[in-house]
Amino acid sequence: MNSQSRRVSIIEVGPRDGLQSEPEILPTETKVEFIRRAIDAGVRAIEVTSFVHPKRVPQMADAEAVIAGLPQRSDMRYIGLVLNQKGFERARDAGLGEIGMAVVASDTYNRRNQGVPTSESVKAWIAIAGAARAAGMRANVMISSAFGCPFEGEVPLRRVLELVDQVLEGEPIELGLADSIGVGVPAQVTAMIGAVRERAPGVPIRCHFHNTRNTGLANAQAALDAGVASLDASIGGIGGCPFAPAATGNIPTDDLLYMLDRSGVETGVSLEKVLETSMWLQQQLGRSTPAMLPKAGIFPKVAEQLRAAAQT
Amino acid sequence: MNSQSRRVSIIEVGPRDGLQSEPEILPTETKVEFIRRAIDAGVRAIEVTSFVHPKRVPQMADAEAVIAGLPQRSDMRYIGLVLNQKGFERARDAGLGEIGMAVVASDTYNRRNQGVPTSESVKAWIAIAGAARAAGMRANVMISSAFGCPFEGEVPLRRVLELVDQVLEGEPIELGLADSIGVGVPAQVTAMIGAVRERAPGVPIRCHFHNTRNTGLANAQAALDAGVASLDASIGGIGGCPFAPAATGNIPTDDLLYMLDRSGVETGVSLEKVLETSMWLQQQLGRSTPAMLPKAGIFPKVAEQLRAAAQT
Repeated sequence: MNSQSRRVSIIEVGPRDGLQSEPEILPTETKVEFIRRAIDAGVRAIEVTSFVHPKRVPQMADAEAVIAGLPQRSDMRYIGLVLNQKGFERARDAGLGEIGMAVVASDTYNRRNQGVPTSESVKAWIAIAGAARAAGMRANVMISSAFGCPFEGEVPLRRVLELVDQVLEGEPIELGLADSIGVGVPAQVTAMIGAVRERAPGVPIRCHFHNTRNTGLANAQAALDAGVASLDASIGGIGGCPFAPAATGNIPTDDLLYMLDRSGVETGVSLEKVLETSMWLQQQLGRSTPAMLPKAGIFPKVAEQLRAAAQT
Repeated sequence: MNSQSRRVSIIEVGPRDGLQSEPEILPTETKVEFIRRAIDAGVRAIEVTSFVHPKRVPQMADAEAVIAGLPQRSDMRYIGLVLNQKGFERARDAGLGEIGMAVVASDTYNRRNQGVPTSESVKAWIAIAGAARAAGMRANVMISSAFGCPFEGEVPLRRVLELVDQVLEGEPIELGLADSIGVGVPAQVTAMIGAVRERAPGVPIRCHFHNTRNTGLANAQAALDAGVASLDASIGGIGGCPFAPAATGNIPTDDLLYMLDRSGVETGVSLEKVLETSMWLQQQLGRSTPAMLPKAGIFPKVAEQLRAAAQT
């Protein structure tokens, strides 16, 4: 493990990537409470919503209302996902401080996700990034499906690197690499981050993993070892649709944080408070979530509790 | 990743560690079919049963009958778990080729698991190892709960290393390190294996992980990077008790093998056949198992199927 890996920023994506894939639509006030609880746990970067068409993603139809409800804090990165100029304008008009734009590594998926080929989304990103800076906003960009496409299959690393070159023109404050469908493995993460860092020296790298094939935390560890600045995760591991067994959520913030805490990696986030929020979230959704720490408990604390119980 | 990590042996522990924790007791012929299917998938090392008291572990009461049903093959490592001299004698009398003995790193857990303090189990191991060699059998030893004890909490690394020194006297063909309750993290794995390799140069190391806190595959990757010879896993990720939500199974062979295959690590095992066996096992148990690959499918094969379906 290199020295760069002793601190990492957790970007909580539950309010966006998590909730957008859940069948329930939570009330705006519940979403805002979710965000408040994450802040209270120490999270300082949150993907709060997305500005997309409400017919396409009804779970995010209240984006402006969520932004209006956010605690006013200068120490927070509140990120709104946008996929085009229209979404950017909504985010800007709502007074948001940061946008994240997604560019999908495969054309087929980009067309399905955003209605245009990838090259059009790259152009849109560069225009949006300039407009964001002009409006005093931060802008990051994520290369989605960088580890594999559900429609096209393998995505060659050179394709990812071409896109890196192209999106750097927009001067992102952070460059994201997303395994949107949870197919990546650590060796792939190590190779990709190594190549991207050569291509984009000095640009902070963010990684976004789904735990669809149980490799999510292994990939997060590989990314950490490769020196990423930020890791996306969702409290409870929410996301994916319970009616589509092949779709699963982001890596759980709960489980990621347990791994980081126990490895001595600093995040500034309280695992106990994340677990409380995770339990609360299960109540809001009315069911269990994929995170494992809420079921297993924090070690070694659980051993202490067991001993205390045995003594009474 | 170092060059030592390009090949690893998977030790299928489903028939023992998996089934011993499941509430159902499968018929002997079903257990033998499970083993035959694993062999057919390419697995060449299987923990087939344990020789423990049938009142303590009724799921393993048919140990001798399972051994009698095993295909006679010279290329297989069939391993039977033993916890004392009595168990060893049963394994020897059943004609088994290899025993595995467990020594628990914490006294409290060793007493609960095997009724004696750890020092007694170490003495028993050394006697058993000698008797096994005299009988023409192989003998391996596993240090259980090396990453943490459910009753005592943290297990200091120096305690694990003391035990390594002690068990080496028995000249094990392989030295196991087990995270019996799934509390370990990759940094711990890396540190422990590094220290154990210094202590036991040339002794092949085997690791045994449970996925209780979602860190199982990350730990397996760290062990692989540190050059372990073998990784335990159970098809379907069975193990743990469905009535005790804090207990969960071994890392799933299915998901581990996906990670290894996609990383170019050779195992000689067919992922497709493991998935078939995993589906078959779900039918035998009458319910879903924790492995994720059977739900998600093998990438990129799933993308090809999706394309083919779209074209018809």
